[in-house]
Amino acid sequence: MSDNKNIITQVEDIEWEKRLAQRTKGMKPSFIREILKFTARPKIISFAGGLPAPDFFPIREFGEACKHVLRTQGEEALQYGQTEGYPPLKKFIAEMLSKYGILVETDNIIMTNGSQQALDLIGKLFIDPGDCMITSAPTYLGALQAWESYEARFCPISIDDEGMMIDDLPAILKSGHDHKLVYVLPNFHNPAGTTMPLERRERLVEIAREYDIVIIEDDPYGELRYEGEYITPIFRLAPERTIYLSTFSKTLAPGIRLAYVVAPKPIIARFVQAKQGADLHTGTFIQMVVNDICQRGFLRQHVRKLREVYSQRRDMMIDAIAEHWPQECTYTRPKGGLFLWAQTPEGIKTRELIDKALEMDVAFVPGFAFYPGGLGGDQAMRLNFSYANEELINEGIYRLGMAMKEELS
Amino acid sequence: MSDNKNIITQVEDIEWEKRLAQRTKGMKPSFIREILKFTARPKIISFAGGLPAPDFFPIREFGEACKHVLRTQGEEALQYGQTEGYPPLKKFIAEMLSKYGILVETDNIIMTNGSQQALDLIGKLFIDPGDCMITSAPTYLGALQAWESYEARFCPISIDDEGMMIDDLPAILKSGHDHKLVYVLPNFHNPAGTTMPLERRERLVEIAREYDIVIIEDDPYGELRYEGEYITPIFRLAPERTIYLSTFSKTLAPGIRLAYVVAPKPIIARFVQAKQGADLHTGTFIQMVVNDICQRGFLRQHVRKLREVYSQRRDMMIDAIAEHWPQECTYTRPKGGLFLWAQTPEGIKTRELIDKALEMDVAFVPGFAFYPGGLGGDQAMRLNFSYANEELINEGIYRLGMAMKEELS
Repeated sequence: MSDNKNIITQVEDIEWEKRLAQRTKGMKPSFIREILKFTARPKIISFAGGLPAPDFFPIREFGEACKHVLRTQGEEALQYGQTEGYPPLKKFIAEMLSKYGILVETDNIIMTNGSQQALDLIGKLFIDPGDCMITSAPTYLGALQAWESYEARFCPISIDDEGMMIDDLPAILKSGHDHKLVYVLPNFHNPAGTTMPLERRERLVEIAREYDIVIIEDDPYGELRYEGEYITPIFRLAPERTIYLSTFSKTLAPGIRLAYVVAPKPIIARFVQAKQGADLHTGTFIQMVVNDICQRGFLRQHVRKLREVYSQRRDMMIDAIAEHWPQECTYTRPKGGLFLWAQTPEGIKTRELIDKALEMDVAFVPGFAFYPGGLGGDQAMRLNFSYANEELINEGIYRLGMAMKEELS
Repeated sequence: MSDNKNIITQVEDIEWEKRLAQRTKGMKPSFIREILKFTARPKIISFAGGLPAPDFFPIREFGEACKHVLRTQGEEALQYGQTEGYPPLKKFIAEMLSKYGILVETDNIIMTNGSQQALDLIGKLFIDPGDCMITSAPTYLGALQAWESYEARFCPISIDDEGMMIDDLPAILKSGHDHKLVYVLPNFHNPAGTTMPLERRERLVEIAREYDIVIIEDDPYGELRYEGEYITPIFRLAPERTIYLSTFSKTLAPGIRLAYVVAPKPIIARFVQAKQGADLHTGTFIQMVVNDICQRGFLRQHVRKLREVYSQRRDMMIDAIAEHWPQECTYTRPKGGLFLWAQTPEGIKTRELIDKALEMDVAFVPGFAFYPGGLGGDQAMRLNFSYANEELINEGIYRLGMAMKEELS
């Protein structure tokens, strides 16, 4: 490719920015992407991404399913498929969800390329420029990113130990803006690790009905509960106005990009239209492979294994923080999921601490990344406990403690 | 799931339409989708979709590649990956393209979920509501669909036997609107089957430079040439202002949803931002599987096989039309690709003929589906010749001829 530069420099590059749509002004380079670049360094201990433990990926089961699908349904697996998703897999999902009180038919489900695509399609379907999305602050940064590109504004609501402070919602809804959607992560909140109790979910539904708004319930980690009782999903409480998102990324593997939306049929029909223009459909082959794995009953036993491993890693992280960090630090104790949320002592800003941490080969995500406009979380950080093993968790937390103590001294 | 209806009807469905964004007004149910539903009927002979021949899918090679990737790089294959795409596959693509005079580095490439996602990302990056996209008429309906959802308007340019009539372009560009992009399918146009000769490509580049517009070169079928000389791609003629799209859908399989965009690096960086918000990245596993297949040198030999099969099917379709159709019918004789474009005799509208055809268990796509706003193509139809085998092609064309003759008598 030595001719390369000749061709490329023969003509001067045109100016691209002036040609771009207005909405691109809201698309920013992601800070977390920059951090994740560092995490590719071999020696780094990463608490930054939301990565599952690769040592527990069901590689053998994927191999068997690929072989079986190609042998028995190869032509179908490699051909175009339906925009809605592969029907047998949707049937499996409907049956799985029924155990949790989410009682739906396959027409209430559309498969997506990861939940990120679901968030994007929500933006495409619902957001006019300037529309205000109600989210917790902090909230999942992928949602901010998806909706910023549709020129959304954000109405943030603070969180406490029980997630979004729902009682603050009516004041915002009375403020006169035309609010249409509220976005919640009721189970093991990303980034905060909090879980919303039933009473608060019921209050949310009550308010949503009173003000006639739609609830987006993002539930990627619901299966990964390590303690406490299962709590009724919001979709079950308000099936007429809830858009429920979940994924196989955390229970099977994220590299397959497979997730799903559950919602009333009229709005699923709109998702189908939007997805058709966006990418026609989600890969047929990968949906059939996942269906094959699920039909063997493997998912349930695998999730049981993951719960065991991740809860040990969570415990190790909490123990290590208690042992190695300055006493003034506070942190959540999540009952499930992949993250805990920690607060540094007065005077330590996590957006500065990250540089020092990366020098020490440890990565985390500073809190501001999870706030609309980056306004908040100066002393907060998100720590993932699923990716690194227990030994590395202890070592990484120790180094972060050292970094903070040096700052304080 | 017998409880289902109880839950769903417990509360009345809310009204969704009033909550949707303005842009959803441009999203229409796709006519072609309705036809494709019919094509699922077992006895139907379908010339409707752009489906590759399933009997030639490289099922064995996919099986071997899945096995090899999972055995040697299973953890990487199932983990999150880069938004830009899997680097070794991008390197393979760069080397493959260099044989066609497209000389780029891996940073000039981003992988997408089929070319449909590339069209969607183009909409997201470039189209403000009301912006005018210049396309041929007819043109690929997936492009219309992708861009309608960004509230684009369309400036159509007629086609002749050599594709878009480029000499009509300056008049449109002088008309005062702020035109930014022109969309062309230079090789084996979908739906028309035409190929743009070099002189016309050069003229397009000249005009694009004079008026400083961007060219989108959609090239899904470039490898599937059955006769005639290879023609220099527009990207090679104007690498500073061309966004080149291609795909593995027609050369390997569409069910894997794998395509790519080639463009100057500053705009690829913007594609990366847009794609990150849209779905984080394209599946790691499937990219590694395709890379494995490609690295074995299989693609080249497979494409040679497809050229042989599809050119025979094209010949069969042309022969059958000549034999069975009313003499007044005209049609293109494509030098490659998957489609030919036929005109019915005076008095036969293809949007009516399709009903009769479906009754006779034959499907095609009426011409109007390929015109912005459905304005045009009343006597045209798109016929796919890659999916059905030669015997079925002959039978299906015979039935369509009967249908037309009955209409005329």
